[in-house]
Amino acid sequence: MRQAPADADWMAVAIALSRRGRPASAPNPNVGCLIVNNGLVVARGWTQPGGRPHAEAMALTAAGGAAHGATAYVTLEPCAHASPRGPACSDALIAAGIARVVIAAQDPDPRTDGKGIARLQAAGIEVVFNVLPAEARAAMAPWWTRQVEGRPFVTLKLATSLDGRIAMADGSSRWISGARARAHGHLERAQHQAILVGRGTLEADAPKLDVRLDGLEERSPKKLLLTSGKAPEGWAAVASPEAVADVDSLLVEGGAGAASAFLAADRVDRLLLYRAPILIGGGRPALGDIGLTDLGDAHGRWRLGDSRMLGSDRLDVYERIRII
Amino acid sequence: MRQAPADADWMAVAIALSRRGRPASAPNPNVGCLIVNNGLVVARGWTQPGGRPHAEAMALTAAGGAAHGATAYVTLEPCAHASPRGPACSDALIAAGIARVVIAAQDPDPRTDGKGIARLQAAGIEVVFNVLPAEARAAMAPWWTRQVEGRPFVTLKLATSLDGRIAMADGSSRWISGARARAHGHLERAQHQAILVGRGTLEADAPKLDVRLDGLEERSPKKLLLTSGKAPEGWAAVASPEAVADVDSLLVEGGAGAASAFLAADRVDRLLLYRAPILIGGGRPALGDIGLTDLGDAHGRWRLGDSRMLGSDRLDVYERIRII
Repeated sequence: MRQAPADADWMAVAIALSRRGRPASAPNPNVGCLIVNNGLVVARGWTQPGGRPHAEAMALTAAGGAAHGATAYVTLEPCAHASPRGPACSDALIAAGIARVVIAAQDPDPRTDGKGIARLQAAGIEVVFNVLPAEARAAMAPWWTRQVEGRPFVTLKLATSLDGRIAMADGSSRWISGARARAHGHLERAQHQAILVGRGTLEADAPKLDVRLDGLEERSPKKLLLTSGKAPEGWAAVASPEAVADVDSLLVEGGAGAASAFLAADRVDRLLLYRAPILIGGGRPALGDIGLTDLGDAHGRWRLGDSRMLGSDRLDVYERIRII
Repeated sequence: MRQAPADADWMAVAIALSRRGRPASAPNPNVGCLIVNNGLVVARGWTQPGGRPHAEAMALTAAGGAAHGATAYVTLEPCAHASPRGPACSDALIAAGIARVVIAAQDPDPRTDGKGIARLQAAGIEVVFNVLPAEARAAMAPWWTRQVEGRPFVTLKLATSLDGRIAMADGSSRWISGARARAHGHLERAQHQAILVGRGTLEADAPKLDVRLDGLEERSPKKLLLTSGKAPEGWAAVASPEAVADVDSLLVEGGAGAASAFLAADRVDRLLLYRAPILIGGGRPALGDIGLTDLGDAHGRWRLGDSRMLGSDRLDVYERIRII
């Protein structure tokens, strides 16, 4: 006989579901919801494009009568505020006869922030919270970062040789990475709301910055240009890393100037390092000055989060260690 | 009941034994030998410091009468030439009553090169060869490279930040790597016959280049300086990568000038890339010009051989792909 999954096991599934909402749920949080009745999954939900329906609403609709007496696993506290676009999820869970709600993270939005939990408890529902909260927050890092810190969650992509070069001395860089690494880069584009390059990259490469993966073309992000001047048609100009507005998730693709500006401003949360098994030697470095004056200060900032081979290239994903 | 190991399984053990001989067996090959009788290991041997006793002689001595009717697994064809320092190993195997010899790689030394196999067969011993030859050659790559190509097997060590810097702009580089990566670097020193730096590194860092690991201090390698001038006391001067003589295994430790010179001459067989989870930005690059003029030529040269974490640093070992 199999061992019954624990709350944390079901929550891990809900967190995986929550990732499906990225980035289309923005500016709403990408939440995941799993409804389990008598040990069986009866419905799954995640925040839909544009932010509605919410994950709980999607799952409750799918569950129908099977929600009665069931446990709902949600990655973020169910909202306590109704809107013209739908009822509060806490009310919907109560109305559906859910018996137990397991929550990963409390909602920092002041319109909910504990009120959802209180409303569920007042209706006699058993509430368990703080189940895998860090994992749930990581899965909705863009929304969380903007909600709590008022700025976008920024991923910096660097595609280099083993010796850290992004191009030959003459600027040629096609191709350093192989086809699988480039496809992965396009998938990352599809998971971001906006993408940014510097003027040098715009002028040298005229990058389209679109998602060139079949079926994902419509996921091409907004295009931002880091410049003190004007942006061409189809682009928005941002004067500094601090000036990026109305974006939850930003992918900085290059070049060295833009990358260094975001690092110098400590505005990078995640590093994607694609490394091809080649040596270039004299060539263009991935970064310029990032404001480091003491080597000791460089330590303790980055933690390896993921590492994998993409063909013969290696992808290392580093996360900025922030003490909150 | 356990399944009996196959010849390749026993040979893998012999190859692991052969690595114990590095680098002390030089200029003799570091060979491994396993003697198996009736499914049991009765003796193990590997080439001893200075090159004698040979692996087979060591194992036969340990086996004594248990060698009679046994199978010997040797990573290199047993030698056919007697010397003042001992009898030919093929004769010793015959005299000990070995019934079967399994060999990984044929000896390219013209004094043996098939003669050892022929002598064993003439004595009625069953000989199996080409069992894991590539693995056996890799384990004795320094000796093999010098024997076949007349040059040392060269390992280049680079310790960099994630963005490929080996020092800050002012030259400070203590410390980029953490303690475990540095200890691993000392272990690599202990496995090389000689170690080389350029004049800039000598003058800036005055490196001792010794093995600072308890119990391995005596394994500190010869010290070579890449210079067109003279070397200080305790060092030997070499004028170019091609001028390194009388060395099977060379470790190039820096700086960027020496590393680039060896890469430009295509004299690097193995890259040790220690990478700390830090970003430096403007700083000193790991490499200067290595003679690359077309990005396409950089591909197809390096293959990832090993990858591991050393504390929070990552070590990637790349091997030069050479079509022989």
